[in-house]
Amino acid sequence: MAGKDVPVSPLAPKKVPTLPPIEGVSFATAEAGIKYKGRTDVLLVSMAKETTVAGVFTRSKCPSAAVDWCRENLGSGKARALVVNSGNANAFTGVKGKASVKLTAEIAAKAIGCKTNEVFLASTGVIGEPLDASKFEGVLADCSKHAAAGPWIDAAKAIMTTDTFPKVATATTTIDGVTVTINGMAKGAGMIQPDMATMLSFIFTDAPIAAPVLQNLLAKGADKSFNCVTVDGDTSTSDTLMFFATGTAAKRGAPAITEIGDARLSFFKRALNKLLLNLAQQVARDGEGARKLVAVTVTGAKSSRSAKKICFSIANSPLVKTAVAGEDANWGRIVMAVGKAGEPAERDRLAISFGDIRVAVNGERDPAYDEAATSAYMKKDVIDIGVDLGLGSGKATVWTCDLTKAYVEINGDYRS
Amino acid sequence: MAGKDVPVSPLAPKKVPTLPPIEGVSFATAEAGIKYKGRTDVLLVSMAKETTVAGVFTRSKCPSAAVDWCRENLGSGKARALVVNSGNANAFTGVKGKASVKLTAEIAAKAIGCKTNEVFLASTGVIGEPLDASKFEGVLADCSKHAAAGPWIDAAKAIMTTDTFPKVATATTTIDGVTVTINGMAKGAGMIQPDMATMLSFIFTDAPIAAPVLQNLLAKGADKSFNCVTVDGDTSTSDTLMFFATGTAAKRGAPAITEIGDARLSFFKRALNKLLLNLAQQVARDGEGARKLVAVTVTGAKSSRSAKKICFSIANSPLVKTAVAGEDANWGRIVMAVGKAGEPAERDRLAISFGDIRVAVNGERDPAYDEAATSAYMKKDVIDIGVDLGLGSGKATVWTCDLTKAYVEINGDYRS
Repeated sequence: MAGKDVPVSPLAPKKVPTLPPIEGVSFATAEAGIKYKGRTDVLLVSMAKETTVAGVFTRSKCPSAAVDWCRENLGSGKARALVVNSGNANAFTGVKGKASVKLTAEIAAKAIGCKTNEVFLASTGVIGEPLDASKFEGVLADCSKHAAAGPWIDAAKAIMTTDTFPKVATATTTIDGVTVTINGMAKGAGMIQPDMATMLSFIFTDAPIAAPVLQNLLAKGADKSFNCVTVDGDTSTSDTLMFFATGTAAKRGAPAITEIGDARLSFFKRALNKLLLNLAQQVARDGEGARKLVAVTVTGAKSSRSAKKICFSIANSPLVKTAVAGEDANWGRIVMAVGKAGEPAERDRLAISFGDIRVAVNGERDPAYDEAATSAYMKKDVIDIGVDLGLGSGKATVWTCDLTKAYVEINGDYRS
Repeated sequence: MAGKDVPVSPLAPKKVPTLPPIEGVSFATAEAGIKYKGRTDVLLVSMAKETTVAGVFTRSKCPSAAVDWCRENLGSGKARALVVNSGNANAFTGVKGKASVKLTAEIAAKAIGCKTNEVFLASTGVIGEPLDASKFEGVLADCSKHAAAGPWIDAAKAIMTTDTFPKVATATTTIDGVTVTINGMAKGAGMIQPDMATMLSFIFTDAPIAAPVLQNLLAKGADKSFNCVTVDGDTSTSDTLMFFATGTAAKRGAPAITEIGDARLSFFKRALNKLLLNLAQQVARDGEGARKLVAVTVTGAKSSRSAKKICFSIANSPLVKTAVAGEDANWGRIVMAVGKAGEPAERDRLAISFGDIRVAVNGERDPAYDEAATSAYMKKDVIDIGVDLGLGSGKATVWTCDLTKAYVEINGDYRS
């Protein structure tokens, strides 16, 4: 992990919201001593009896033991507890990993008073080291005793690894006129190209939403948020995005939502998608060594899928990312990244812009190109790269960060 | 480009061979003043009348004007001249780019006394800036006048951009008992994941080989050499690998080879493939900022194609590459890269090794794992990463280099 002396990312949000309580959700954090010293490394969330659950996970062929566990237990759609630890990912740990998640779930189930298949787990940190779950013995029971409705920022801090700031977001919206709340947290910050989910992110609401609907909302929302973020193109073994709905707002008159097409969900959907995008962008803002947030937008592609693939080709190109780090409007490298994506593109129809400045058009440098204005633009914190292919109406946006020497430094001695 | 004060890669070959003349090939280099000051930046190669030609090029959807030109003129299978310039890639230069290659070919054809469609071109350097071909006026005629059979190292030097050392290789072999020679040169060093060819590489022989056979030999050879090398996963707009055969060895009794299956080619094939691999590895050894050469070998995959895809997933992972730079045997990141490749893999069958040291087996850390021995191994110049999937008999090897701060530095201000 980044040492304590690593400065907070300059891209961290200027204002951190205080998250309100969500009825039916209480939690506590503790120092289980998994790996780090002098900081919390485990989070236990306890949830009301009627809580429904949804999740999307890494597409890695070598997922962590915790991801396997969650997938197996998601079928019932019911959750009572969430245990998240940092410092050890419990990935590539074979039969020991399986035993470890089972023991963790047993300890948590006993602490909360629920079934083990109502316990969901996530682990983040080093891959390949066995996770000694016996360290949770006593610790989780103690967490359960002291569980409270806040402060949420403490929960977000306990799940950090190389993150330089905790990531939280909140939204208040209505379902059929009844106010409901959505709270979320996420952690990054390397090995990030989620491909179905982020590294770790957990969303909670008091809205009464059936598990299949929750799953649908989450999968669609992830596709336009976490699945559009990349730090380094590396997909984690542990990517987990979960959504818990306690349903406690029903007591205040919120209708139970059981159909995906229910029109009363429209405000909720919009609020959820905005919150997911907010958290996903925070992950990019805290990319390891990041000094600039980069939004890559491709328009005029043959399809949205094609546009997204080209976005990722640009956003993952080390040459594009180092150019942004060097504040160099090197659009030649963007041409290269468009070309290598393997998607339909015609050089002589391409237009490229940085912010509002069009630097290239019709396959060559824009005659009106202004080097000084472009250089000034590149000094900004947030860089918008625009590529128009001039072929169709497909479009997509992907968020990433620059590639700096600090990334190399952080990852050159993470494990040791 | 890397400044003159950039030190030579520590991975440069200790011995540089002196290439013998190839009858029918003469060349000269000059300072055309394309971009660099005080160094040669153009190479003119003049070839005998019977010279046949083959080429493989970038799969980029936005290829350079020179690549378009070569593809168009390859059909005849005949070559008389090759012009290569560094400093400007003549890519993404629209109609100006087309006019520029035409003018270059006209100037060269006049200088040599051949047709324009017998002139082949390659350009490397900045993308997106128009190439002023009028700078070749006079220069190429002068080169033609002074063309000589050597020294080949001068030719290799004229085509360098961020390369820290010129890359040449030579082989002597026989066809039906008659000695023939193969000489080759290449340049890297960033934007390298060739995908059909390297950035720029040119091979010459005096063997009398028909163009279709030459093309077959080259395409197959590239697949096991240049197409197995990556520096940064970025595919250039200009990747060009060409092979010229003057046929002058026929005078000494070498038989004309007109069939791909001709058994008399066996020694030649082996020598060619070895030479191509040698040049391709030199490209990885001169990856921008490289301090270590990394060979990634995947065995036990479902197919060779699958093995190669997993090799590239590992070899292009920034987290794996930074770990190697930090001399950290972080095999957890290798698991991650196997998992994200999207190819068949079973965590509990994976074995991973560094050199002869097996660090993981059956989905977890090798019980016999020795941290001290592994750390000592990671200090070497050349690191072998081995992954056995335990699923089938597919295997592949890919070469790359580590990702260091110097890469970020070099690419953070290349254009400016």
